[in-house]
Amino acid sequence: TISRRRGNLISFKMTCEFIMTCLFEGILERLNAGEVIVGDGGYVIQLERRGYVKGGHWTPEAALHREFLRAGSNVLQTFTFYCSEDKLEMSGNVTDITGAQINEAACDLARDVAKEGDALVAGGVSQTPCYVKSHSEAEVKAIFKKQMEDFLKKDIDFFIAEYFEHVEEAGWAVEVLKTSGKPVGATLCISPYGDMHGVPPGECAVRLVKAGADIVGINCHLDPLTCVRTVKLMKEGLEKAGLKAHLMIQPLGFHTPECNHTGYLSLPEFPFALETRAITRWDIHKYAREAYNAGIRYIGGCCGFEPYHIRAIAEELAAERGFLPPASEKHGLWGAALEMHTKPWVRARARREYWENLLPASGRPKCPSMATPEDDYEKQLKSNIPT
Amino acid sequence: TISRRRGNLISFKMTCEFIMTCLFEGILERLNAGEVIVGDGGYVIQLERRGYVKGGHWTPEAALHREFLRAGSNVLQTFTFYCSEDKLEMSGNVTDITGAQINEAACDLARDVAKEGDALVAGGVSQTPCYVKSHSEAEVKAIFKKQMEDFLKKDIDFFIAEYFEHVEEAGWAVEVLKTSGKPVGATLCISPYGDMHGVPPGECAVRLVKAGADIVGINCHLDPLTCVRTVKLMKEGLEKAGLKAHLMIQPLGFHTPECNHTGYLSLPEFPFALETRAITRWDIHKYAREAYNAGIRYIGGCCGFEPYHIRAIAEELAAERGFLPPASEKHGLWGAALEMHTKPWVRARARREYWENLLPASGRPKCPSMATPEDDYEKQLKSNIPT
Amino acid sequence: TISRRRGNLISFKMTCEFIMTCLFEGILERLNAGEVIVGDGGYVIQLERRGYVKGGHWTPEAALHREFLRAGSNVLQTFTFYCSEDKLEMSGNVTDITGAQINEAACDLARDVAKEGDALVAGGVSQTPCYVKSHSEAEVKAIFKKQMEDFLKKDIDFFIAEYFEHVEEAGWAVEVLKTSGKPVGATLCISPYGDMHGVPPGECAVRLVKAGADIVGINCHLDPLTCVRTVKLMKEGLEKAGLKAHLMIQPLGFHTPECNHTGYLSLPEFPFALETRAITRWDIHKYAREAYNAGIRYIGGCCGFEPYHIRAIAEELAAERGFLPPASEKHGLWGAALEMHTKPWVRARARREYWENLLPASGRPKCPSMATPEDDYEKQLKSNIPT
Amino acid sequence: TISRRRGNLISFKMTCEFIMTCLFEGILERLNAGEVIVGDGGYVIQLERRGYVKGGHWTPEAALHREFLRAGSNVLQTFTFYCSEDKLEMSGNVTDITGAQINEAACDLARDVAKEGDALVAGGVSQTPCYVKSHSEAEVKAIFKKQMEDFLKKDIDFFIAEYFEHVEEAGWAVEVLKTSGKPVGATLCISPYGDMHGVPPGECAVRLVKAGADIVGINCHLDPLTCVRTVKLMKEGLEKAGLKAHLMIQPLGFHTPECNHTGYLSLPEFPFALETRAITRWDIHKYAREAYNAGIRYIGGCCGFEPYHIRAIAEELAAERGFLPPASEKHGLWGAALEMHTKPWVRARARREYWENLLPASGRPKCPSMATPEDDYEKQLKSNIPT
Repeated sequence: TISRRRGNLISFKMTCEFIMTCLFEGILERLNAGEVIVGDGGYVIQLERRGYVKGGHWTPEAALHREFLRAGSNVLQTFTFYCSEDKLEMSGNVTDITGAQINEAACDLARDVAKEGDALVAGGVSQTPCYVKSHSEAEVKAIFKKQMEDFLKKDIDFFIAEYFEHVEEAGWAVEVLKTSGKPVGATLCISPYGDMHGVPPGECAVRLVKAGADIVGINCHLDPLTCVRTVKLMKEGLEKAGLKAHLMIQPLGFHTPECNHTGYLSLPEFPFALETRAITRWDIHKYAREAYNAGIRYIGGCCGFEPYHIRAIAEELAAERGFLPPASEKHGLWGAALEMHTKPWVRARARREYWENLLPASGRPKCPSMATPEDDYEKQLKSNIPT
Repeated sequence: TISRRRGNLISFKMTCEFIMTCLFEGILERLNAGEVIVGDGGYVIQLERRGYVKGGHWTPEAALHREFLRAGSNVLQTFTFYCSEDKLEMSGNVTDITGAQINEAACDLARDVAKEGDALVAGGVSQTPCYVKSHSEAEVKAIFKKQMEDFLKKDIDFFIAEYFEHVEEAGWAVEVLKTSGKPVGATLCISPYGDMHGVPPGECAVRLVKAGADIVGINCHLDPLTCVRTVKLMKEGLEKAGLKAHLMIQPLGFHTPECNHTGYLSLPEFPFALETRAITRWDIHKYAREAYNAGIRYIGGCCGFEPYHIRAIAEELAAERGFLPPASEKHGLWGAALEMHTKPWVRARARREYWENLLPASGRPKCPSMATPEDDYEKQLKSNIPT
Repeated sequence: TISRRRGNLISFKMTCEFIMTCLFEGILERLNAGEVIVGDGGYVIQLERRGYVKGGHWTPEAALHREFLRAGSNVLQTFTFYCSEDKLEMSGNVTDITGAQINEAACDLARDVAKEGDALVAGGVSQTPCYVKSHSEAEVKAIFKKQMEDFLKKDIDFFIAEYFEHVEEAGWAVEVLKTSGKPVGATLCISPYGDMHGVPPGECAVRLVKAGADIVGINCHLDPLTCVRTVKLMKEGLEKAGLKAHLMIQPLGFHTPECNHTGYLSLPEFPFALETRAITRWDIHKYAREAYNAGIRYIGGCCGFEPYHIRAIAEELAAERGFLPPASEKHGLWGAALEMHTKPWVRARARREYWENLLPASGRPKCPSMATPEDDYEKQLKSNIPT
Repeated sequence: TISRRRGNLISFKMTCEFIMTCLFEGILERLNAGEVIVGDGGYVIQLERRGYVKGGHWTPEAALHREFLRAGSNVLQTFTFYCSEDKLEMSGNVTDITGAQINEAACDLARDVAKEGDALVAGGVSQTPCYVKSHSEAEVKAIFKKQMEDFLKKDIDFFIAEYFEHVEEAGWAVEVLKTSGKPVGATLCISPYGDMHGVPPGECAVRLVKAGADIVGINCHLDPLTCVRTVKLMKEGLEKAGLKAHLMIQPLGFHTPECNHTGYLSLPEFPFALETRAITRWDIHKYAREAYNAGIRYIGGCCGFEPYHIRAIAEELAAERGFLPPASEKHGLWGAALEMHTKPWVRARARREYWENLLPASGRPKCPSMATPEDDYEKQLKSNIPT
């Protein structure tokens, strides 16, 4: 079959390139060498569904690292995005365990799995309640500094400052993290319209790079193709400013065509009825290709991305990367595993054209196809701007 | 909050009843005592997505037992539905490992987890390619006998003959399994129209009970409410015939309103684009209540059921069962965890009425809401009837 | 173009057959000769929209006969379905004008237009409030007799007893109308499940033919393809009983996939928001072909059928009938008129495949695709059965 | 009932104001006096459906004036938008009848009906093929001059230059028509993004008013609420420029949420499968209110607007205008006519809240809710700009 032959072809390429690939170590060396870096997927939504994490709290009590590694991720993020001291307090997680202990344990967890394969460990920080409340640069930077120091006690490869709605706060995070001497990536959870102060994506990218970010991009809040559009605007901004940086993207694994600035938070279905919006592996193929064509080389996912979505990125870009991930042993490309199905009409689905062109039905004729987002951007814009 | 108060109420009930509950051991003693048994969910779809199992082959290489146990399952099925010798051969799994070894390993896996909680282990057999091919009662029974003997070497509590499209074959399975002296449950994957020979559900139930089944019902192929309807027809059939049996149900976790007899196999989305049809936890509440009201006391799920769906069954029936499952520690009932969300409009979703009445949008305005099933029942009916 | 060439071909056929056709005069002679009779469309919905008739009252104050004639109708019905004395009273239309005067004026209107072309005039009677209220055969028959006598003062060609939910009452109407010596057609507004007493379609047909009906079939309440299905069941019933009759059909011009026994009356959209359900001319092509293939030779429409729908019947069956209707001078077959459009992508739509395969979007992403019918058949069944 | 009482109230207001209203004669006097002018609806789509006009040609062979007058229109447009000499040639309408004869006949038709009520007659001109072809101001103006002279031989009240995609051409039309000394309205068929040269709506309005237009606005191509948005942008442009003009709007009677610059022409459903997108009378109530609130006082419709839609404008604005139109005698406000329906659940629909909040289902579960427009704006923008 096509998929098998394609598999052999890339096996050869793999034999040659894998050895070379392994000589590079850091995230920047890899990106500089033109490698495609596959990020990991979302932790919270899936862990909530498995019964290990509480919706709305998203505290870091478990991890999916091994599944993502098998699916092809080059980077495993520490599951610590909710782990600044001020957030832990706010969510009422007052136990004997300190934030430092959680951050350190999270690093160990990620590192243990990363060692099983060809993966880097990224320490993650994200927006703080403190920023909106105090708008004090000193206070906010102190929080990031403390979290960074926890990570530096452990063996992490680089930092990601992610899930920022305000580019100003993201810039502060980057400035702090750069003091570590490690590479720093920074992603905003914004729409093509810009951040919550109305700063357009191009200008956001410029500010982040000037603050010291090596990699910039978008994560969470909106669907893959919208996020690609926003990263393109960031790229244009950098080009106009004569700046250079690597681009990264880790979008939602949900369709959000009607969303505006606050993204899927504004959907009536958030967070406990998003099933029907889930992207398929075939949506991922389109996304990975679009992202690649836009010049993005660090391609992953956020909430809603399960291991099979990450695998689909790795499969779409197998030729470019030179190899398939371990989990593809359990996956015939483009439905090839159906070739042996007992029902003839299911066997007929073992081909790329079928899945590529399928418009999946919702099975919910009494539901609409689009919702009315509940946010009011004008209000948002005003209420979120620290005065 | 309501959910917390409700939690306290049932804590008391739990203190009293849990001790009593633990005195009963077997599935029949529990069902006879009026207990609600929560089954487990689907293994294959989820394991495929995690990268451990291949779509179309569904071979038994990993398991989700612990997650289901935490979610409230009283029964853990051995993940062996594809594990008869003839199926293993057909799917090309020719390795040094024998079917017997897999069956035995699967029993150990399930038992190890079951010991961690209040769960029974059920050994599962299902329809054989041999039946359609040879239609030989002797050959088919020999296959079931071999599989049963594998299980009996291990410590299992009862048997489930599940996923049968032909009641005749299911009856043969029951006759074999009854020779073990263990309780036997039998579920068909049929629609309200009856089995593939056109035998209506009521008559199917009668035949299974006459063959020796202690528990009868429906699994897989169709959405929860349709499966409840079919079990009701089985119940009516038993009542008319003056027979008694416990009722069980383990439906799909997908919406399949347009499906006919072959169920979701006939949907264009099967098996790699079913995301949009996935049921929410709120759909499950309705299903669990409907099933309970119909007199069904063994309530679980099949393909598409993830641990959070099983937890939703356990939560809907917490008052009836007298306790909440461990995984509910990570779940505020009816969205209660959102009470502390930073966005006011998300906080407003922390209530039952909101989620109960939500009609979730698909986020796919260019997709239809119903597909055209590809099967042709008339052809099916003819081609599947052994001559 | 194809449509023009096809036009020429059938022009020839027309020259030969038209002369023959004109020799036949009555509805039965035409049907017996194998001719396809194109009925007319709906009056009330369209006249309400034009501002001449009141929704809910549907009193007979104006008519669309000329448009239907131009569109190809062979029969023009008197617009009198609401014109029995008891209905006029109920709707509060107490004026100096009597029901007799309205019936007679309606006959004149229809006849004047019919003379302009090759059309017959049918006098229509339909179900009476009296039936459900009194269930007195004598009273109900008296009402039909009075209405029939009004018609007989004028020049009508045959009778149609239409829009009956109870076959018993339809049978009484047929028995009365047969005393006129004119041909009688009878249509029920029932679903494939049968009439409001639960009499299945096949048995309904048998009863109507035994009562004297020359033509039997279905009108109103449900979409075209569902009505074709019901007429097929009537045909099977007649064949089993060894009876013969011509078949007719005049369905809704709306999609009603979720409707049960009371049809579109039970839809939340009835009667003032049905726009989105309106059938296209391309739906009509499929319907006309299906009806013809089912052996139905009197093919028209009811509520929702506008002149262009009737024209589409005439165009689909142009080869069979031997000619196109006058209104086709203003219509390129299968979109041929678009061949000269200024936009290239609109020009590309001037072909049959395009329109035949189009799945028209609703333009309403926040609306569902199916509604929940409000009727409760079980209640209906009981409450409507006269005791 | 509410609607009846409301009717009485406005009858009184009507008695007083109607006399006053009739004292004003011209369109500008009426608008200057603050009167709401209700325009008429679309001619071509409806006449095509009635079998009198050919799709794609839209030649002026019949008219709906009387129905629109009864529905409440204050203005009847001559049905002449396709009636410039160059268009008649292009569409192959080469007969003995000249454009002058058609224009004059069209004026007589409109005037005869206008006399039956309180209506003005507007002579209409629209964009010419000549503009895109030659881009010669002299040639294009000569065409408009000729058409204007035909109209001036007859008794028309004012001119409307409508359906222009290029503001430049519309300005030329206005300049010609102003030489007549009659009031001139000008409407563009553009989106909020501006005309086909990319001139934004605000600037378009400024240019038209500077060219001499007394009334400016939008017609056709997009749905009512989008057109209101565009007129608002025009109004803002005028205010910024310190200019004054009356505002008018005559949008599509179809939902076109996914359309861009070329509007419904780009929809796959155009022009023969638009049924499912048709707006309801309840959509019209929202539209008329929005338009009124935006300061628009000439409110009508274009393609897709049937008489009952015009009536709905007149009904929504009955209090502001002081009277109901004649056709409202055949219409209970907000479904009041259903109060006497035989089915209890239909009777329950005789209230405003029901219809105002209804989300009508499409009845087409296998169709999408949004289509992919076929135009490519970038291409359009370039190909349509005369060089």
